[in-house]
Amino acid sequence: MSNIHNFGAGPAKLPSEVFDELEEELVNFNGTGISLMETSHRSATYIKLNAEIQDVVRRLLNVPQNYKILFLQGGGQGQFAGVPLNLMSRTGTADYVITGIWSVIAAREARKYGNVRFATPQQDSYVNIPDLSTWDLDPNASYVHICDNETIDGVEYDFIPNTNGVPLVADMCSNIMSKKFDITKFGAVYGCAQKNIGTAGVTMVIVREDLLNQAMPACPSVFDWTLTAKNNSILNTPPMQAIEVMGRVLKWIERNGKLEKMEELAVKKSSMIYDYIDQSNGFYYAPVEKRFRSKMNIPFRVGPPKGDVDLENQFIEDAEKQGLIQLRGHRWNTSLRLQFGHC
Amino acid sequence: MSNIHNFGAGPAKLPSEVFDELEEELVNFNGTGISLMETSHRSATYIKLNAEIQDVVRRLLNVPQNYKILFLQGGGQGQFAGVPLNLMSRTGTADYVITGIWSVIAAREARKYGNVRFATPQQDSYVNIPDLSTWDLDPNASYVHICDNETIDGVEYDFIPNTNGVPLVADMCSNIMSKKFDITKFGAVYGCAQKNIGTAGVTMVIVREDLLNQAMPACPSVFDWTLTAKNNSILNTPPMQAIEVMGRVLKWIERNGKLEKMEELAVKKSSMIYDYIDQSNGFYYAPVEKRFRSKMNIPFRVGPPKGDVDLENQFIEDAEKQGLIQLRGHRWNTSLRLQFGHC
Repeated sequence: MSNIHNFGAGPAKLPSEVFDELEEELVNFNGTGISLMETSHRSATYIKLNAEIQDVVRRLLNVPQNYKILFLQGGGQGQFAGVPLNLMSRTGTADYVITGIWSVIAAREARKYGNVRFATPQQDSYVNIPDLSTWDLDPNASYVHICDNETIDGVEYDFIPNTNGVPLVADMCSNIMSKKFDITKFGAVYGCAQKNIGTAGVTMVIVREDLLNQAMPACPSVFDWTLTAKNNSILNTPPMQAIEVMGRVLKWIERNGKLEKMEELAVKKSSMIYDYIDQSNGFYYAPVEKRFRSKMNIPFRVGPPKGDVDLENQFIEDAEKQGLIQLRGHRWNTSLRLQFGHC
Repeated sequence: MSNIHNFGAGPAKLPSEVFDELEEELVNFNGTGISLMETSHRSATYIKLNAEIQDVVRRLLNVPQNYKILFLQGGGQGQFAGVPLNLMSRTGTADYVITGIWSVIAAREARKYGNVRFATPQQDSYVNIPDLSTWDLDPNASYVHICDNETIDGVEYDFIPNTNGVPLVADMCSNIMSKKFDITKFGAVYGCAQKNIGTAGVTMVIVREDLLNQAMPACPSVFDWTLTAKNNSILNTPPMQAIEVMGRVLKWIERNGKLEKMEELAVKKSSMIYDYIDQSNGFYYAPVEKRFRSKMNIPFRVGPPKGDVDLENQFIEDAEKQGLIQLRGHRWNTSLRLQFGHC
């Protein structure tokens, strides 16, 4: 099936080597004679695997020891609640920077747990990251939340904002492990696996340990970062198979040039498409300002800036005939979209 | 590796046919040319699969249309919070029947969200289900919670308690799909997949629809049964691979005699062990009263009723030499335990 080119934004394409490894170990994990799916999460086998995968994350992102690496369930949307439940009790208020649909949804969920301020001016459309000078940051906020890459709108940060000592929290669901960044500038980052680093079912949280021990009483135990850290992400049965797939992808990244190479590839692949769009004399249209164009997912229109439905349907139909699949944009955004995984 | 006999209580043994099917479809799901792990959760492929698996559940348990079948993340412990978050707002109080360690933990989690009453007298050890005549049920309770099978203590209900119209909620994490039961006697039942019906990462909730629409404001969206039902369990990216494994196991159950056969096998297998224990002149000891002995997991001691550590360690060591693995009991209970999956 080598003629299939999968542009799904998430769940996204995974390296074929990872599938070879998964097939190899499916019924006999590491010589145990049983599948990982049949293995106790309290076994030496899983405890070793759990540590190994945390170590790969630590090496790839250069995570210092005062940050905990947690594996949770519930996806990015689970952490839209998890972030305020774990971090908002300090002052009862948090700043949200709105740069697209996902940051709006994160802010809406956070409102259940305290006072949510929008730190940036209301925008009619999401085509850039508002200049830092326009951000209205509350020094009393428990944290500042950003969405580092908006999967639907295709807007991506190219800088880490200075929040004057207020912990910065980033949703990196759709670009984690696609570039190097200085984790010490963040209080916490989180990302689900199914966009760039695995399959749906596991969400990684990396949190500075001084931010633990302040979960709200209403926080479900399985979303409690402190409890999860104390239990080394084995509070209850972890989604071990999803964690293993993630580990396999992370090890593949490590073997294939680490984050420097992933970033280089993301820039190269996305530039090819953006250049083509920009040189199409308006036949294709990418709405996002050049500086903030996502290197992970490219929303674009066919025809005029608002798109031409018939042309776009024809584009998708003809693309599918060529084996280019999962190109249609998100149901909340009629744009088409090209998504780049690592491979 | 046919000499391996896996007695893990969960994650537990899965049918080998299921692994054959998973291997077959790993990189080419249903002829799509891509893995299910790479497939959009909004695709026709997944929407069909989602419906198919719900249908199998509906057929196996004879679930009427006024019950919703939901697939969530976070395990049984996630639903220890999910149950009160979704059901306790009506009166702010709930009754918990305590029959072992898991019902204690469920009650402890529920206390975060309201007034939790223990409906049964305090017990020194968990060796039976207290007689229904001793239950002190509050007619004002939002629901009555039971743990239908205590995985650690090996105590299992052999009846469905009449709660006089108060919705009955059952944790069936370790015995769902092991017997036929009348779902209409319950307001909701829930069970994680990794004990008898799949791999860790998905939890099934079956809830009567008149109990929806009362989630607490603090309920994270991903735990909100009403939102999940409205979105047909595709609120955010579901743990599709874990759901597929569960679906494969459920279809295997359906092809292999359905729940009647699973129950027959569970009775047969557990009786063999209980009989052996009871006829061992006290060399082995099973603490649970005969009527309430679990057909899914058998805690037992070697030596005196409190066990003999050296003998038990030797038992485990010698068993492992024979390929009998994952026999050691839970870290919170030093008993040994035999667990029976379906196969």
